[in-house]
Order: sequence, then C-alpha cells, then structure tokens
Amino acid sequence: MAVDRLAELAPIFYPKSHAVIGASATVRKFGGRFLQTLLNFGYSGKVYPVNPQETEVLGLKTYARVGDIPEPVDFASIAVPARAVPGLIEECLAKGVKAVQVLSAGFRELGEEGEMLEREMISTAERGIRIVGPNCFGVYCPGGGMTILPGENLPRETGPVGFITQSGGYAVRVPRRAAGLGIRFSKAISYGNGCDINECDLVEYMYQDPETEIITAYLEGVRDGPRFFRLLKEVCRAKPVVIWKGGLTQGGARAAQSHTASLSGEEAVWNAVFQQTGAIRVDSLEELLDTVLAFIHLGPVTGRRVCSIGGGGGIGVAAADTWERAGLSVPLFPPELEKKLLALVPAVGSSARNPVDVGGPFPAPPMFRAVLETVCTDADVDILVVDEIEMAMVIPRGGQASRPPDLLQEIVRVPLDIKERFGKPVVIVMPVEAISTATLESEGDRRKIRDFYFQNGIPVYLTKDRAAKALANLTAYYRRREAVSSSCQANGQRTAA
Amino acid sequence: MAVDRLAELAPIFYPKSHAVIGASATVRKFGGRFLQTLLNFGYSGKVYPVNPQETEVLGLKTYARVGDIPEPVDFASIAVPARAVPGLIEECLAKGVKAVQVLSAGFRELGEEGEMLEREMISTAERGIRIVGPNCFGVYCPGGGMTILPGENLPRETGPVGFITQSGGYAVRVPRRAAGLGIRFSKAISYGNGCDINECDLVEYMYQDPETEIITAYLEGVRDGPRFFRLLKEVCRAKPVVIWKGGLTQGGARAAQSHTASLSGEEAVWNAVFQQTGAIRVDSLEELLDTVLAFIHLGPVTGRRVCSIGGGGGIGVAAADTWERAGLSVPLFPPELEKKLLALVPAVGSSARNPVDVGGPFPAPPMFRAVLETVCTDADVDILVVDEIEMAMVIPRGGQASRPPDLLQEIVRVPLDIKERFGKPVVIVMPVEAISTATLESEGDRRKIRDFYFQNGIPVYLTKDRAAKALANLTAYYRRREAVSSSCQANGQRTAA
Repeated sequence: MAVDRLAELAPIFYPKSHAVIGASATVRKFGGRFLQTLLNFGYSGKVYPVNPQETEVLGLKTYARVGDIPEPVDFASIAVPARAVPGLIEECLAKGVKAVQVLSAGFRELGEEGEMLEREMISTAERGIRIVGPNCFGVYCPGGGMTILPGENLPRETGPVGFITQSGGYAVRVPRRAAGLGIRFSKAISYGNGCDINECDLVEYMYQDPETEIITAYLEGVRDGPRFFRLLKEVCRAKPVVIWKGGLTQGGARAAQSHTASLSGEEAVWNAVFQQTGAIRVDSLEELLDTVLAFIHLGPVTGRRVCSIGGGGGIGVAAADTWERAGLSVPLFPPELEKKLLALVPAVGSSARNPVDVGGPFPAPPMFRAVLETVCTDADVDILVVDEIEMAMVIPRGGQASRPPDLLQEIVRVPLDIKERFGKPVVIVMPVEAISTATLESEGDRRKIRDFYFQNGIPVYLTKDRAAKALANLTAYYRRREAVSSSCQANGQRTAA
Repeated sequence: MAVDRLAELAPIFYPKSHAVIGASATVRKFGGRFLQTLLNFGYSGKVYPVNPQETEVLGLKTYARVGDIPEPVDFASIAVPARAVPGLIEECLAKGVKAVQVLSAGFRELGEEGEMLEREMISTAERGIRIVGPNCFGVYCPGGGMTILPGENLPRETGPVGFITQSGGYAVRVPRRAAGLGIRFSKAISYGNGCDINECDLVEYMYQDPETEIITAYLEGVRDGPRFFRLLKEVCRAKPVVIWKGGLTQGGARAAQSHTASLSGEEAVWNAVFQQTGAIRVDSLEELLDTVLAFIHLGPVTGRRVCSIGGGGGIGVAAADTWERAGLSVPLFPPELEKKLLALVPAVGSSARNPVDVGGPFPAPPMFRAVLETVCTDADVDILVVDEIEMAMVIPRGGQASRPPDLLQEIVRVPLDIKERFGKPVVIVMPVEAISTATLESEGDRRKIRDFYFQNGIPVYLTKDRAAKALANLTAYYRRREAVSSSCQANGQRTAA
C-alpha cells in the first residue's frame, strides 16, 4: 500500500474551502437543506454557494458557476439533477477543486442512461479530481466540520471509529444510534455507487488514519474483489475491521442491485473472505454497534472463559446456555471457591457455582461486592458478566422506590470498583425491564446508569444474546490476530535460521 | 386426557379462602411480604394468617395452626424454613385444604436432605392434597386475585396467555415485561421443583382452560418425558405451545441442576420433541414475548411471502436478507405492479421492487398510503411489513419538530387503515432510534405509537431480526397444524372408505 491516502483524501474530510453546487434558499430542495445543515453543524472553512439562479443564499454571496469563485476551492458538494452532474465536475476540475461529493441520485442504480453519466464522471476523475458518490449522503467528519444531510445533530466530538458505507440511510442511522451509546466517530462516509472513490480507497484511508482505531462498514458490493481481499488481510493485522455485508441472500442481492447497483457476491465467497482475512462478520446494525462497544471498552481480550453473576436461578441457566452457544465457556469453579461463595450468598435460593446466582435481582451491595471479589481472586476466568442485577429503581412497590438512594449508589459502583481493582474485563447485561409507556422515568434511570458505565469502560448490553455475540466477535478477532502474529514470528525465525 | 384438571386445580388459581402460613408483621420476612402483596393486589377471598408467634398480622386475626381456623380453607401458601414444611402440609391435609404452594426453598435443589423432605411431602400429597413447588414463587392469576411475591404491580386484567415455569424469577419477569407490551395472562405459575404438580398437569390445565389461548413455558426439566411428549402432540393441534427450554448446553444443564434440581435432557432429544409435536421452540425471553405478540395480533397465518415497505435502500437490503434467512420469502412483484409503484415513489433514491423503498424514513403520508394500497391490491403477498418508517418525531431539526402534528397523525393511521381495509396481517418494525439519555421524550412518543398499534392488532418489533423470528415461529406452527389436520382428515376418509 504505497499510496498516501491520508494526503490524497484530506480535501474530502478536512476541506478548507467548500463549494455547494445547487445551493438554494429553499430548504425543501436538497441543496438548500444541505447548505443549511453544514452551516448549523459548524463547518468553519470558507463556504461558496453556487447557483446561476441566485445571488445570495442564507446570507452568503452566491456564484453562478464554480469557476466564478475568486479564491481556491478544495472541495465541492453537488446536489443538482443527475444529467447536469458530469458537466459540473468538469468545471470543478478546471477550477482546481480536488474532490467532490455527488449527493444526487439517478445514476447507475437506475439503468443504462445513468451508467453513461457515471462513465463520463470517471473519465473526468482520471484527469485529476476525486469523486465521492454519486447517489450518496457524503461525509461526516466532526474534526473537519463536515456532516451528512440529516446529520445536523450528530456529535461534534471525534472518536476512534470509522464507518464506511454505500447506504445513505445507514450513514445517518449508524452514527446517530451510536451517539446514544457514547460511541464517537473519526469519520463516517456514504459513498453510494462508488464510481471513483470506493471501499478499498476508504479502508486504506482508515488504515493509515491515526484517528481511526476500529474500522466498520456496511457494504452492498465490492468493485475490486481481489484488491479488497488483499487489503483486508493486511489491515486486520493492525486494526479490527467489522463488516456488515448486505445482500447475501437472493432477495437482498436484488435489493442491493436496485439500491446502489451493487453485485453482492455469494455468501460462500464472503464467508471465505471473512475466514481468510480475519475481518469480523456482523449481520445487523445492532450487532455492528454491540461489537464496537466491546472493542472500545474491553480491548484485546482473547480468553473466552466467562464467569456470570446474576440475580436469579433461571437467569443463570439462560446465561450459561447463551454463552456456550456463542462459543464462550462457563468453567466449573474449583471446590474451594464454591465453598467460599456458599458462605457469602443466601443459604437457599442461590447458587455458588458458575453462573453464580446471588439469590435475586436486588442483592445487598456488600454481599454482591464480596462475591465479585472472591470470584476475581480465586477463579480462572477471563471475562466477568454482571447479569440482570437491578441497578435502577425500576420496580416501585406500593408507590415507594424499592431501595433507598444510597444503596442505589453502592450497587452501581461495585462492578466498576472490581474492574479497576482486578483489571478484568467486566460486561453488564441490563435489559429494559420497564418496557411500558408508564415507566419512562425508570428507563431514564437505566440509561443514566448505562451511560455511567460507558464512561468508565464497561460495555452494557440489552440482552445476553447480544452480549454473547459481541464477546464472540471480539475474542475471535484477537485470537486470530495473536495466531497470525505468532505464525509470522515463527516464519521469520525460520527464515533467519 | 380423562382427568378434569379445571376442577382439580381450581383451588390453586381461584381459591375462595387462603391461609398464609408463616405470615408475619415483619415485611422483611418472606411470609410477611407475601401476605402484604396478596392484599395489595386485591385478593378478595378470605385470608387467614397462620403463625404461632402472632395473634394479629396486618390487622387480620392470626391463628397458631391451620387446624385452628374455624372455617373451611381452600388453599394455603407456606413460607417457613424447609424442615417445617412437610409437617405443615400434613396439618393442611387434616384440615381439608385442597392445595398448597410451598414458597420456601431448600429442598431437592440442595441435595439429599432436601430430597427426603420432598419425598415426605409427596406421600402426603398422595393422600389427597395437591402441592405447587417447593422452591417456587407460586401463582399469578388475575381472575382469582392471586399474585406471586414481587407481583403486586402486575396487571389486574386477565388475558389469553398462560405461562408455566419452574423459575421464580421468570415467573415475575415474563408477565412484567409482557405487561408493557400489552400482553395479558390468564395465569402464570412458578412450580419450582415440581414435586407434585408438574408441567404435564399444568399444560393439561391450560389446554382445558377456556381462558387460555396460547400456552407458554420456560422449562428446565420434565419429570415424565413420554407423558409430556404425548400431551404436547395432542395440545398443539388445538393451541400453540411456545417453549423456552433452558439447560440445553452443558453449562446450562449444570445450572439447571443447581436451580431446580432438573435433569435437562439433551438438545437432540428436545429438537426431536419440537419437531414431532409441533411445539414452538424459542431460545430467550425476548423471543418468547415476540412470538406471543405475533400469535395474539396476527392469528392463523400460514403464508410466508413478505412485502416489506421501508424508508431507505439499505433498509430494504437488510430487510430482504433478514426475511429470507428466517425462512420467509420476498417475492418479486409483477411488472405492472412495479410500474404503478414507480409512478408513486420519488423518481430517484427509491425502489419500486420488493422490498419497496419509499425514498426515506419520512414519506409523505398520501404517497405512503397509496403505495400500501397498491401493493395490497396487486401483489400476491401474505404479510405486510412497515419497516423503519419514522412515526414519531424523533429527529428534532434546529430545535423544531421535524413534522407538524397533523402529518404525524396521518402517517400513524396508514398501516392500521390498510390492515382494516384489506384484512392482511401488518407488522411494524420500529427500532429505538432515540437511544440516548437526552431523548427520553422521543422514546415516550415511540412507546405511545407502539401501544396504539398493539391496541389495534398490529405487532410492533424492535428489530427486523426479532420480527422475522416471530413470523417464522407463527407460520411454522400454523403450517404444521394445517398439515396435521388435513392428514387426519385424509386418514379419516380412508378409514370410512
């Protein structure tokens, strides 16, 4: 990978000046809304609206053509009907614009005519301008003040996750939902039909980008399979790449064809890609975000021995089933440890085996703390899961909260103290118990406690299933990376010898 | 099934008089809390606290022994240490009590000594008294004014779902979470170690019970496998039986042994049971409730051709993948229908194929309505899924709500109008978009709209995956029932001929 993608694609993510072609005072038009959104988000470079029908848009001097702008222009966003696009890109090239994003749809995804337009654009690109899109929502990069169209309220802070997608909808949905989970992005980019800049260029960029630690993607098709395969193999040795591949079923492939004119490829081929490169396969938006949470908070975990501590016997049974089905293990405790735990948990209606049942969802905090400490001291386990312990006052009894606030504080602190003291990965499963419309306040409490854990390096999951998948994905990645790295070392030693 | 379980088990679910043995003024004691809970829930039969140390508990005259109660007693709840339990059941038998529930733990699940206590209890039961438990949370039956211990706030209204479980925790959690989803229960029963009344008796009861239309269960083990198998085969012809079987993995089986002293059985055996009886296998609490929602709202659906109408191209790809992976199909539309839809959806950035993409998550309601009507008129599909269309104002833009309230009303009405006009099953996928602590109000809007659909026969799911599993479970059940019933008819005709 000799190319310096960081320099090459800098104008896309960090443009110093930005022409909005098709800008309009009418916010009902795409170009009008885009300009408004960009300004509201706080883009701080120079902005030049371009529209031959206007002289001023949103208080900004407006130019008839991009060539009329008196200063240099790094980047242009284009939101005009498809047919006009190729000519405008020519004008941008002539002006010296380094890259454009084409927000308009109506190209290859609609058939032959659109395909011809894209061919024209590609031939322009080859003469010295890079194109994001067409049929895309463009770039979200908080560090560069850039946002996608309905992304005015996306976080202004930057973070360690990069997201690459063909889909405009998911380019908005993924960062928006992730924001609520405390996940922040270095950049998210919707590249639509990818006529010029494609998934390979973008993965290369994220690989080189010091801001990006975890690369994620929703992909419908890949233009250059062999290049993508080689690239993944290299990148996965250094950074996790989490891929949600859409269109792996027959119906999904057909939909991908309509959506971004993508050839999806067969499931068997993609399974081989995942297996041979170490990229992580996820199958839904939820699994993508759950997996990212594990990577962000837990770091390089390879061990799969889980100790699960829950608030009920049925919960323990379900937990063991869930961890084992996901390929994690629930090791037996040594007899001495069971004996110690027996002295801590309630005498009846509990279990001192793994999964531990502390007798109910409202354990006394000192007992709960002692159980966790004992397990961390004496058990040979890699991951601690706190499972369906009630941290929030979700069950008002007879009109009164079920535990006084000081207890509430203590029970919430315990998993964090344990994590800090023993340096062991701690994971929390905290379902929405208060699921009704009447209990919104309890849901607020739950979210606050969840956020507290997120801020302190503990991932919180809605269900055991989702926690299990995320942990399986995390450990699979780091186990493979470890294996690859030691086999490389072994090969190196052989070569040296 | 000659036994009249309805009459036999009536004292458990609808006791006219109820002794609470171990009742105490101390609410920290189990017996004290139980009595308080029962009274607060609104049990309207006669209540007799029994405790040799008290003369009055919660304002009620208290008896030293159950034999001292001057009137007849239908039912007794026992919450005293395990060793005292067998003698008290003897006293209940002598008094003419018809059934008891033993809320205490400390029996077979703890080893040999507890097993001996249970054997004593069983021999008493054989002389004319029925026992629920031990190691259980007992009975929730709103029609009989009965509730389990932390079930004071469970709904007072009755409903079509029966729930049978060994687990006390899930006997509370399932009805509590279900309540928030508008699901109501005829009865839920936690029978713990099941020394006398077991899953077979309870399934028989629910089968005969005219109040129960859907039978659900969380089971860790089954005492009499062959009887259970024969029973399921018969019951599933008339009522769906949804079973979450815990302990099918090695670790889960070990936990089930600690929890309710259950022998779990092997996964292969259980798979055969599901296949040969038509009982529906679910693997989590969430899948259990999702499946119940489908049964309640959609009724006997056998067709699996889904038309999915969503607010984005990527959403359509993910939808098709999800439906097909679950065994549902996403049929191609006839060309004339595609043509009609093309005239309705936005010219670009949309799709007139199945899954339909109406161009974005905020479609104009009249267009959205026309698309649904056209699909229902011209497409040969069995189920309509409305997928990630924004019904609530979850994305405030520049401080203002994104659509005026009248539009909000209209978009919410559309799926319901379509369902009523065309009589087709409609399903809605509505994720929690506003996932952050700051957007609790939006979550409130979402829940209100969800509840509106629940009240009108439309199930709402959090994710496509969960909707897909529920639909797969629903259709698998009714397809099998149809096949069994027509093969029975064919056999009948052969016999007649």
